[in-house]
Amino acid sequence: MRDNPLFDDRDIALLFDEVFDLPALTALPYFAEHDRATFAAVIDAARRVARTALYPAYRALDEQPPRLVDGRVVVHPQLHPLFRQLRDLDLIAAPRPVEVGGQQLPLAVFTLATAYLMAANAGAYGYLGLTQGAAHLIEAFGDAHLRATYMPRMYRGEWTGTMALTEPQAGSSLADVATVATPTAAGHYLLRGAKIFISGGDHDLTDNVVHLALARIAGAPAGIKGVSLFCVPRRRVEGDALVDNDVAVTGVIHKIGWKALPSLALAFGERDDCHGWLVGEPHQGIRYMFQMMNEARIMVGMNGVATASVAYHEAVAYARERPQGRPLGAKDPAAPPVAITAHADVRRMLLRQRAIVVGGLALLVRTSRYADLAHHGGDADAGLLLDLLTPIAKTFPAERGFEANALAVQIHGGYGYSSEYPVEAWLREQKLNSIHEGTTGIHALDLLGRRAVAGGGAALAAWSRAIDQTRARGAADAGWAEDLGAARDLVLSLTRELAARGLGGDSEGMLAHATDYLDLFATVAIAWQWLELAAAVPDRDPAHRAVTRACAAYWFATELPRIHHLAALCRSAERSFVDLDPAWL
Amino acid sequence: MRDNPLFDDRDIALLFDEVFDLPALTALPYFAEHDRATFAAVIDAARRVARTALYPAYRALDEQPPRLVDGRVVVHPQLHPLFRQLRDLDLIAAPRPVEVGGQQLPLAVFTLATAYLMAANAGAYGYLGLTQGAAHLIEAFGDAHLRATYMPRMYRGEWTGTMALTEPQAGSSLADVATVATPTAAGHYLLRGAKIFISGGDHDLTDNVVHLALARIAGAPAGIKGVSLFCVPRRRVEGDALVDNDVAVTGVIHKIGWKALPSLALAFGERDDCHGWLVGEPHQGIRYMFQMMNEARIMVGMNGVATASVAYHEAVAYARERPQGRPLGAKDPAAPPVAITAHADVRRMLLRQRAIVVGGLALLVRTSRYADLAHHGGDADAGLLLDLLTPIAKTFPAERGFEANALAVQIHGGYGYSSEYPVEAWLREQKLNSIHEGTTGIHALDLLGRRAVAGGGAALAAWSRAIDQTRARGAADAGWAEDLGAARDLVLSLTRELAARGLGGDSEGMLAHATDYLDLFATVAIAWQWLELAAAVPDRDPAHRAVTRACAAYWFATELPRIHHLAALCRSAERSFVDLDPAWL
Repeated sequence: MRDNPLFDDRDIALLFDEVFDLPALTALPYFAEHDRATFAAVIDAARRVARTALYPAYRALDEQPPRLVDGRVVVHPQLHPLFRQLRDLDLIAAPRPVEVGGQQLPLAVFTLATAYLMAANAGAYGYLGLTQGAAHLIEAFGDAHLRATYMPRMYRGEWTGTMALTEPQAGSSLADVATVATPTAAGHYLLRGAKIFISGGDHDLTDNVVHLALARIAGAPAGIKGVSLFCVPRRRVEGDALVDNDVAVTGVIHKIGWKALPSLALAFGERDDCHGWLVGEPHQGIRYMFQMMNEARIMVGMNGVATASVAYHEAVAYARERPQGRPLGAKDPAAPPVAITAHADVRRMLLRQRAIVVGGLALLVRTSRYADLAHHGGDADAGLLLDLLTPIAKTFPAERGFEANALAVQIHGGYGYSSEYPVEAWLREQKLNSIHEGTTGIHALDLLGRRAVAGGGAALAAWSRAIDQTRARGAADAGWAEDLGAARDLVLSLTRELAARGLGGDSEGMLAHATDYLDLFATVAIAWQWLELAAAVPDRDPAHRAVTRACAAYWFATELPRIHHLAALCRSAERSFVDLDPAWL
Repeated sequence: MRDNPLFDDRDIALLFDEVFDLPALTALPYFAEHDRATFAAVIDAARRVARTALYPAYRALDEQPPRLVDGRVVVHPQLHPLFRQLRDLDLIAAPRPVEVGGQQLPLAVFTLATAYLMAANAGAYGYLGLTQGAAHLIEAFGDAHLRATYMPRMYRGEWTGTMALTEPQAGSSLADVATVATPTAAGHYLLRGAKIFISGGDHDLTDNVVHLALARIAGAPAGIKGVSLFCVPRRRVEGDALVDNDVAVTGVIHKIGWKALPSLALAFGERDDCHGWLVGEPHQGIRYMFQMMNEARIMVGMNGVATASVAYHEAVAYARERPQGRPLGAKDPAAPPVAITAHADVRRMLLRQRAIVVGGLALLVRTSRYADLAHHGGDADAGLLLDLLTPIAKTFPAERGFEANALAVQIHGGYGYSSEYPVEAWLREQKLNSIHEGTTGIHALDLLGRRAVAGGGAALAAWSRAIDQTRARGAADAGWAEDLGAARDLVLSLTRELAARGLGGDSEGMLAHATDYLDLFATVAIAWQWLELAAAVPDRDPAHRAVTRACAAYWFATELPRIHHLAALCRSAERSFVDLDPAWL
């Protein structure tokens, strides 16, 4: 594979300095030990590992996924040194407090750094992301024993972690978790049950894997209110020894992408010797998990952006060097062929990819920055905005990123359809992002049914204020600021109408077009980013300024006007699929 | 894999009898030896082979693609008996005249029969389709020697054929074909050159493979006007023997789908002993090829429909039996979970797939029937409509079919992301259809730049009359007929405006949004099919009538209104990508 920049450093710099002024976060006490240089150093280090080590190994890891050998998972040999390099970046705990081993790095900076790693190999980065999420659960809710035994080793990457939520019969419906935890006199529980799609659920990269698992304490009530969170290591600590904890790998899922990271079926307690330790209070498992979900969803959203970005850059490089055909209206058949970038439709496909990638990237950095301001700046609006934007930041890159990845294949023509070229692989990688951490349909219901209407629409009001701040920034096209204001007004009035339907008892009518509502909201949210990018892009690099404004122009002309049709659908009495009897199909 | 109906027989029957009344074609002299029963028997036979033999072998053929062994291609052993069954259906020459070994079957009937085979295994069917196309070229343009030596064996499937057009440096730009043909005193030519992406270019299913190859006679003018068509067998006939003809396999493309059918790089004349016979007149190769292109494009369009159809049926079966979650507003957590068809968004995804699949199928049968009426009924309007609709019939199933295939994966959740379930394979299969036989962007330029405006808009006028015939059919929703009339008017006025731009010298401005124009036209064309289907569906099967009208309602409410935005784009001065300098990216 040729070199690939993974992201355009010009965009990263624009977001870092002009758009979001991340160095200004150092004014908050939590980030005060940092300065612009330490932030930049973290991004630089990740970028270097991503470009020079992780990306060049992508194809090898894609072609030879982990195998099950004597009941344990063996990963590709090349992954061992790569994992050490990833771990040595010290990113797992980076956003966490110094007292638990972290660096108190803003999530916005962390997000930019990890973006490069995800673009280089989403699956390989997954070990770090999952470990961070699992250790954070222990940090937030675990008792002193769990915090002392597991958290530091996980934050240092000596052991990795998983989120062991899904079960074969339950899928997205966590209320149906059936794994049972039986208390013992010794304080731990004995777990018994089956999990599926457990990413990183076993491997030979570290001595231990720590599962943060949902289970039901024997006798707990049915449904979500009876689900508790447990810490279930693959090997438990007994004195100085690590002892097998009866977590068996019962199957390897043959995923179509993310092949560096195994996805497994696990069995807890086949020999009745699987010890688990309750994390926090009984029956609070779902609540705890959901408190961590926003960050996990931002990670999935960034994976979507990253996977579209690496393919976009490959398509640009290919299109610039691939000669084919003549310009429109050329008459001389003996003239040499032109690079396919000379064809307007190829430029359209490239610009569309870029608009999706960089617009999505800006939304992810914005959402991460809201998390920083909410958690460490006491900014109530930021908390509301984080909550409101998370379903969009998770689903937009998955849905439109998949479209962008398909365009990258299309630009490669017949070559793109072959595994000799890498673009088909990223199309495979991307498809997972609309499924894991909540499907697009579930996030649509969550956005319209809960987040947009909660608290009397407080989050929408905060969003409206944020939009006005961007519109006041000036410098970009005045028509765009006006269009964005009108689009914002449409979202507000539409949401009020739909909420009134729900309050009137017609929750089905309110939510029938939730997916269209999500599409509409995301289209406006990305227009917002493009107005911000176009307003902030400095004059010093005319080419970057020109392409940034071209993307903004494209989005405002091609995508934003779609919202009127989507709003009409959301409001309509269109019930073709609502009233559909599945027996008719 | 479970059984899969591939298509819904209710839809096939509806199209066959009520919508298009295919038995009425027997009134034309060319089809007069047939009756309804012989048409139905052809479809039945293909359906049986597709369901009972071809489909059950799909996974095995996908998992073990053809290999290169000692310079020749070896296919999966299971393909040998399957190929014999396919050949025994006697479909290759079925639409051709009796005197060349055909059955004078309407293309519309042939299209419905082959649809099942394509849904069962697009790659395996490809051998038949390519052979038909190649033999038809010989039939149409070859001299007596070629017609006697190659055509009958190809029409009987004893030998297969290929279309050897593409070269590594030329891709879609056939004007740049560089293979050279040097005349000899013996009458044949000596060919030398490299071809790539030659589907079925070598295999061990038959004794011989006959390439219909584009090449340039030594000294021919540059560009399209210097390209000739040659018949280049893998083994040439010398007396009673078949002698190696110096066609070497230089590489196997590792395609991501269509794995039953090898895609090869070939070298002609590495030993200067590759004989080729000129087909027809010199320098007419591109014209001959394009005379056959409409049928090849209908085949690709049907492949798109078929690949979306098989996945749709799998998704319906999965969704009906997969329990997960509770209905909206359910309160009792101890109640058993419901099948996911109980969730409105799942029904939306299923109905959307069906609307794409059956709408596309109707368009393909309609287009095939126009070919029958044009070629055998002297119907001038039908000829114009065939020409106008072909780019839509080719690209709509590829683009929207891919979206439908992605929805089938989405409905399967995490399971859909694994190769344990078949839906991911059809997503891979589908991606080829937007690339081969002309990319979507190329067809968009062809539709707007040529077909829609040629002859003073004669084809559009014929189309307008055909729309009015459908609108007059009555029985369906009156609002739909009105909406379709308005949409037709929009296409007509928009085309006039854009044509005027082109005539005014601004061909770039005319064609910049050609892809949006194609999308718009296709959206209207499918609405037309749904009005026809909804008007024609009889009362005798209430479930089928209900789902047919639900699809029509969905399309008219959800898709048709998009055309106003697309028309605005086509008319707009939006030039973001037109003016883009590729160096900015």
